[in-house]
Amino acid sequence: MNTERADAARNRIALIATAREMLTDVGIDKITMDALAERSGLGKGTVFRRFGTRSGIFMALLGEGERDFQERVQSGPPPLGPGAEPLDRLIAFGRARLRFLQENRDIARAAFDGRATVPFGPPTTMTQRHVRMLLHHMGIGGGDLDILAMQLTAALDVPPLLYTPPDDGARNEQAFEDRLARGWEDLVRRLIG
Amino acid sequence: MNTERADAARNRIALIATAREMLTDVGIDKITMDALAERSGLGKGTVFRRFGTRSGIFMALLGEGERDFQERVQSGPPPLGPGAEPLDRLIAFGRARLRFLQENRDIARAAFDGRATVPFGPPTTMTQRHVRMLLHHMGIGGGDLDILAMQLTAALDVPPLLYTPPDDGARNEQAFEDRLARGWEDLVRRLIG
Repeated sequence: MNTERADAARNRIALIATAREMLTDVGIDKITMDALAERSGLGKGTVFRRFGTRSGIFMALLGEGERDFQERVQSGPPPLGPGAEPLDRLIAFGRARLRFLQENRDIARAAFDGRATVPFGPPTTMTQRHVRMLLHHMGIGGGDLDILAMQLTAALDVPPLLYTPPDDGARNEQAFEDRLARGWEDLVRRLIG
Repeated sequence: MNTERADAARNRIALIATAREMLTDVGIDKITMDALAERSGLGKGTVFRRFGTRSGIFMALLGEGERDFQERVQSGPPPLGPGAEPLDRLIAFGRARLRFLQENRDIARAAFDGRATVPFGPPTTMTQRHVRMLLHHMGIGGGDLDILAMQLTAALDVPPLLYTPPDDGARNEQAFEDRLARGWEDLVRRLIG
């Protein structure tokens, strides 16, 4: 059992490292389950067990990058970190999350695949959990907080992944990100009435 | 020019018909750009020009199904159709949209692909346009209505595509859809304060 777990952990580390190499060497579009299995020298079965689908590879890569971000949310300075009012934290979280998604856009887009579905249950992603907790602290009750957190997470995460500014220049990217951040602030302020 | 347009329209109709046949005969996972080109007897170039990406095939299929739905929204009985208060129409729209996505779930999921991005501009989908119009009629102004409509469209469309109830049974599907519909109602009621 322990050996199996150690093997699984070693495989996971090796696969993530190989995927990162491939990102630099061959580009994101060439990273497939088959190509990853071949380059890593591990069996296809191992890759499938580890990631499930192609998007699972990128969810794992995104998760690695998310650790730093999570650290800042959980113990960094306010208003993103603890110590500010929940509404201010929710607004700051939206802005920081949009920044994070923009910085990791190619990976985040590849992680986002309609064919992979997530069983609905208690919030599984950091964003859903954090949004839910802040809504709860803001005293938004009565409704279905799990669903509200899920809907707000979609409202926050999906636009920067699905839409691009008309011209892909850096200035337009920044202007679009700013509009999304102001839109998020507007949305959550309206929510609390 | 006219001949070119007529050719394009004929190709489009042929490709959609072939994709529908393939849905029944071989199943959704086997529908790829290559397989569609082969089965339709049209060149790969034609398929790529028409749909852009694999998800484009399913966006086209979903669009066909959306016509009926759009008809009900634009000229059916209230509160989905015209004649009810904008808030009631927005709530009814959410419930009907969730039903539509549930009924077309496999196609809608396949249409939803992080690799395809949409240039951001004036609302392009029927959902965004309709939500934006109702928000405007509800007197929600001051903020950025294009962005708010985009965020609310994500909040409405994405959860039923990305999440599945823990057990895939029909009763759980219905219960999940109902929770999403109540969540949508709760969200828009909070928005108008």
